[in-house]
Amino acid sequence: MNCITHLSPGLWRYPNDESLRYKDIEYWQNIAKIAEKGLFDAIFIADVLGVYELYQNNDINALAYAVQTPVNDPVQLAAIGAAVTKNLGFGITAGVPFEHPFPFARRLSTLDHLTKGRVGWNIVTGYLPSANKNMGTKELPHDERYEVADEYMEVIYKLLEGSWEDDAVILDRQSGKFANADKIHHIGHKGKYFEVPGIHVCEPSLQRTPVLFQAGNSPRGLQFAAQNAEAIFISPMTKEYTKTAVKRVREALIKAGRDPYSAKIYVLACVVTDQTQRLAEAKYKDLLRYVNEEGSLVLNSGWLGEDLSKYNLDQPLTQIKSNAMLGKVEEYTHSKTDDGKEWTLRELIKVGGIGALGQKIIGGAKEVADTLEELVNEADADGFNLAYATTPGTFEDIVEFIVPELQKRGVYQEEYAQGTLRNKLFGKGDRLPNSHRGAKYRVGGELSSINDYANTGRKY
Amino acid sequence: MNCITHLSPGLWRYPNDESLRYKDIEYWQNIAKIAEKGLFDAIFIADVLGVYELYQNNDINALAYAVQTPVNDPVQLAAIGAAVTKNLGFGITAGVPFEHPFPFARRLSTLDHLTKGRVGWNIVTGYLPSANKNMGTKELPHDERYEVADEYMEVIYKLLEGSWEDDAVILDRQSGKFANADKIHHIGHKGKYFEVPGIHVCEPSLQRTPVLFQAGNSPRGLQFAAQNAEAIFISPMTKEYTKTAVKRVREALIKAGRDPYSAKIYVLACVVTDQTQRLAEAKYKDLLRYVNEEGSLVLNSGWLGEDLSKYNLDQPLTQIKSNAMLGKVEEYTHSKTDDGKEWTLRELIKVGGIGALGQKIIGGAKEVADTLEELVNEADADGFNLAYATTPGTFEDIVEFIVPELQKRGVYQEEYAQGTLRNKLFGKGDRLPNSHRGAKYRVGGELSSINDYANTGRKY
Repeated sequence: MNCITHLSPGLWRYPNDESLRYKDIEYWQNIAKIAEKGLFDAIFIADVLGVYELYQNNDINALAYAVQTPVNDPVQLAAIGAAVTKNLGFGITAGVPFEHPFPFARRLSTLDHLTKGRVGWNIVTGYLPSANKNMGTKELPHDERYEVADEYMEVIYKLLEGSWEDDAVILDRQSGKFANADKIHHIGHKGKYFEVPGIHVCEPSLQRTPVLFQAGNSPRGLQFAAQNAEAIFISPMTKEYTKTAVKRVREALIKAGRDPYSAKIYVLACVVTDQTQRLAEAKYKDLLRYVNEEGSLVLNSGWLGEDLSKYNLDQPLTQIKSNAMLGKVEEYTHSKTDDGKEWTLRELIKVGGIGALGQKIIGGAKEVADTLEELVNEADADGFNLAYATTPGTFEDIVEFIVPELQKRGVYQEEYAQGTLRNKLFGKGDRLPNSHRGAKYRVGGELSSINDYANTGRKY
Repeated sequence: MNCITHLSPGLWRYPNDESLRYKDIEYWQNIAKIAEKGLFDAIFIADVLGVYELYQNNDINALAYAVQTPVNDPVQLAAIGAAVTKNLGFGITAGVPFEHPFPFARRLSTLDHLTKGRVGWNIVTGYLPSANKNMGTKELPHDERYEVADEYMEVIYKLLEGSWEDDAVILDRQSGKFANADKIHHIGHKGKYFEVPGIHVCEPSLQRTPVLFQAGNSPRGLQFAAQNAEAIFISPMTKEYTKTAVKRVREALIKAGRDPYSAKIYVLACVVTDQTQRLAEAKYKDLLRYVNEEGSLVLNSGWLGEDLSKYNLDQPLTQIKSNAMLGKVEEYTHSKTDDGKEWTLRELIKVGGIGALGQKIIGGAKEVADTLEELVNEADADGFNLAYATTPGTFEDIVEFIVPELQKRGVYQEEYAQGTLRNKLFGKGDRLPNSHRGAKYRVGGELSSINDYANTGRKY
């Protein structure tokens, strides 16, 4: 996230941590360079627009402890990183409620042009009520947010996939014709929430639609992800629950009429590593000293949809009447820690104070690589969404210790695949596969709605 | 503009012109580097969202001849250019109708953070009807667009100037406190068009409010510019009318209660130069061969608010019943060419086909420098908004031939001034001056509306 220590409240105070420099171009370019050095597929910039104000029913602690506030625009980081890398992808988060799809489609195309097809879009529907208040819009019921998102995607697909045909740009220097206007179509969209009659104002980029990321975890959210996403983030806290969580996504993909492996499933993990297991454990202990408990309570209150100041920290999680906005409590209360104990709120706050509520993998190269392999092999996951404890620190350690170990085992790429981010991930070309929902909006596709206003002379 | 040859339709075909590369990071970084080499104050990225469809009542010619379509997002170019420069400013255009002020304020702060205070914002109210149609909003009457823009600016000022006090960020490592929440205020905005109760989600950037650019030319537009802008673009076509146009802006500033020199006035000019006057004239003639007449008719129809396909090209301009959306026809019909003749449509299309409808200054270093000095000294202008015929080409020529000549005459900077773009331009610090409208929205200012919801525990 374009903020101070995204998922590790208080860790900005750790020696040599530079996350206060999130306002500097060089800070982000350094992160991009280390990620590319480690042959990471992409860096992923999360986002919230709004403030966490559920804890103690105000925003004071979020502001005091810099809990994902201040938070800058994520969109502007992709091109900065692309300028100093050749292969790294950039997953950018943007929220459906915060920008109309017509100008937003232009932002996506611009991102994909500037990065030469290395961009992904993490689609969010917005979960902080404070953001809606500031947009002057009333907060929609959870499931209706996904109805809006469904139509929003329809508009995006029509613009990115359906407006310009592949051979629209002709570059005829003699006649001066840049394009054949007959191949640039008015999408003629008229729906319940949006009306967009015109053309997409950008020429097609390499991927057209960026690689689509999603993290919906509620039943309706998962349905949306299964219909649209090509990469799905999950954040199970235990190995055991990871199996369940992956299976749930694969089944949702099948239910949506897709191949269960047509979307990559990435497990949120925070890796703390060093030359030996002992050193890694010492590092983790040291990191924990800098976690800000108030900050962690603010964050976790937001994630659980419940003001945690009302609870005794030593209560078991089963006692918390959570709204379960991210489906978290269901998961926690159905699982024990890997030691077989029941989670308490205090444990949650502590563990969740470094790299958020996902896998915590602490050890030397061997131990970490073993766990990562287990999660991929036994739980059927495709890879990891790595949270940092400190930056620099976490990513540098992974690149130094873990990547070579995984390469030695033959389970990690030795070089980048060719082409766009989509081709690197799936090896099947730059564009959305024909089987994807978005492809149906192409010219000639079953959901195409193009309307060139033949009777009115191509005027909107 | 983030498009192919912004103001010179057809010139993308000129030998060695690279404007088809507008999709590449390196293309924009090269432009930034040459501008900084020439000690330009800033590069200015214009924008339209929508298609020029007035000419022949359709969008076919705009698309065929790449007339400001395709057009990519301008916002993403600033940080790219800032990454390879140290002093150059970046003026970014964004339209009030196309993004809600709450998320847009975040984009502005992010731009100013990433560029370290080198950003300007060109405020536009949108003039292409096709853009509004695609936003699902009805087109507002011209003057009401400025009423919306007035309130939009109010929200922006409240967020950027009034939400965070200067000493809000405390960075107390001991207590873990990043900020003193008591110094971060809810702006409590409730207006006719917008309701934004909360805080600004970004910490203050060096300039807080970016340097404000405007180009409003209608009476209502000029009033808006005079109340808000720190740099005002004008585009008189003759030297004589430049005096009138500058005087009109200075008087509007006085009427708005401001010092007539508190905003810089920049004259649109396209300079074609070379080692000698003769070579420059030959170059201009050669450039004219590549102008696309259809493209120029499309552009000028949009600017004049009139379908020029209905007219005989050899008619004098006085015959055109223009809506004068940019106030252009009034200007043309009140002025003769510098040769004393009345403008015809054909002349307008030809001259306006290279670098648009502003000054056309053709000559060797001496002739061009003489004209630039005259415009500054006699017409009381502050500087120039330089349009390009080709890129690379126009800017490189100016840096090679004109800048050294102006420096020799002692009328051009030898090095950049220190600090932010605002300080470089005015030498009076990084922030809006206290006399500016925006400063009145600061905490304690006469227009501050902060509302920290004391009775409701700081919740929105």
